[in-house]
Amino acid sequence: MDFSSRLLENAVNEIAQLPGIGKRTALRLALHLIKLPKENTMSLTQSLNDLRNQIKFCSSCHNLSDIPICDICSNPNRDKTLLCVVEDIRDVIAIEGTGQFKGYYHVLGGIISPLDGVGPSDLTLNSLEEKVKKGEIKEIIFALSATMEADTTNFYIYKMLSPYKIITSAIARGIPLGDELEYTDEATLGRSILKRIPYENSITDK
Amino acid sequence: MDFSSRLLENAVNEIAQLPGIGKRTALRLALHLIKLPKENTMSLTQSLNDLRNQIKFCSSCHNLSDIPICDICSNPNRDKTLLCVVEDIRDVIAIEGTGQFKGYYHVLGGIISPLDGVGPSDLTLNSLEEKVKKGEIKEIIFALSATMEADTTNFYIYKMLSPYKIITSAIARGIPLGDELEYTDEATLGRSILKRIPYENSITDK
Repeated sequence: MDFSSRLLENAVNEIAQLPGIGKRTALRLALHLIKLPKENTMSLTQSLNDLRNQIKFCSSCHNLSDIPICDICSNPNRDKTLLCVVEDIRDVIAIEGTGQFKGYYHVLGGIISPLDGVGPSDLTLNSLEEKVKKGEIKEIIFALSATMEADTTNFYIYKMLSPYKIITSAIARGIPLGDELEYTDEATLGRSILKRIPYENSITDK
Repeated sequence: MDFSSRLLENAVNEIAQLPGIGKRTALRLALHLIKLPKENTMSLTQSLNDLRNQIKFCSSCHNLSDIPICDICSNPNRDKTLLCVVEDIRDVIAIEGTGQFKGYYHVLGGIISPLDGVGPSDLTLNSLEEKVKKGEIKEIIFALSATMEADTTNFYIYKMLSPYKIITSAIARGIPLGDELEYTDEATLGRSILKRIPYENSITDK
């Protein structure tokens, strides 16, 4: 594309570096900003600069946070015996959204993925082991995605924590609520038969 | 969504105000920026600020430009008798990309659309009439999209310029090159039969 404007071209190239945004979308976004008052662009760029320059990681759970210890970790009313291991902040937001979990989180910052060059040392595993060593945690819940890499990561952590006397559990996988059997993929359906649970346990109480 | 971080929440809300970007995508973009070096975010926000604060409109064709008269308008080697009327810069980029047009452009800055509150006075129509008055232009080419609003705009300009001795033409509409008839929508196909042209004229010479 030949933009007759260097300013526009720069902006489009920068926007198009964001994941999932091509040149055409980038141009649409840039033209949108031009149509709006300057204040809108200023407030967008200010918020991005602030985010990038001021964001911290909670020193306890490693989640993104504005303050050294995040709101969840500094809340004394949660269950200290439960620790939920997740990949990143999106999973924390999702689980908090359910209102079903009252323990604390541990954010790994990724999952083991040799193809992407992410090894165990890139994750916050030392800090996880330190937490478990303190002896207060009774159960670790693996709440990673249902992928091969996540399974590998779960297993790595499981082996790492095997010397300690804690329960390890994984979130349930199976047919999503409201889904019809005939449209469920075979792998999920097959696994949900193999991993069936006693009917009494399957009744949700809400 | 409950982000435990005000910085993240602000950034996500700002990004989500862009057209076609929801909160989930905004969160993904914000987390992407956090993972990259600070310089990437600085260079993105700098380019957006520069664009918004420094972009001008060419005083001749009203296209976006870094300079008072854009590169196309200040090029003396183009055909002064041909003026192509388009909606915005995207159309200029698209037509320039074809390499088939060697005249000058006139960017309307929108099309007449009462539902969106855009009337003739919001477009650069006065400036268009001034150009035509000078008498150098022999042909005006309407190159607007194939929508009702565009048709209205074309007709408005056609009436406005009727006192002047110029040719007005509209870009050809019909079956796109390479398309199969059976998949063409009925309106386009029907119109392409009504507006058929002599076979000799339909042979492209390139």
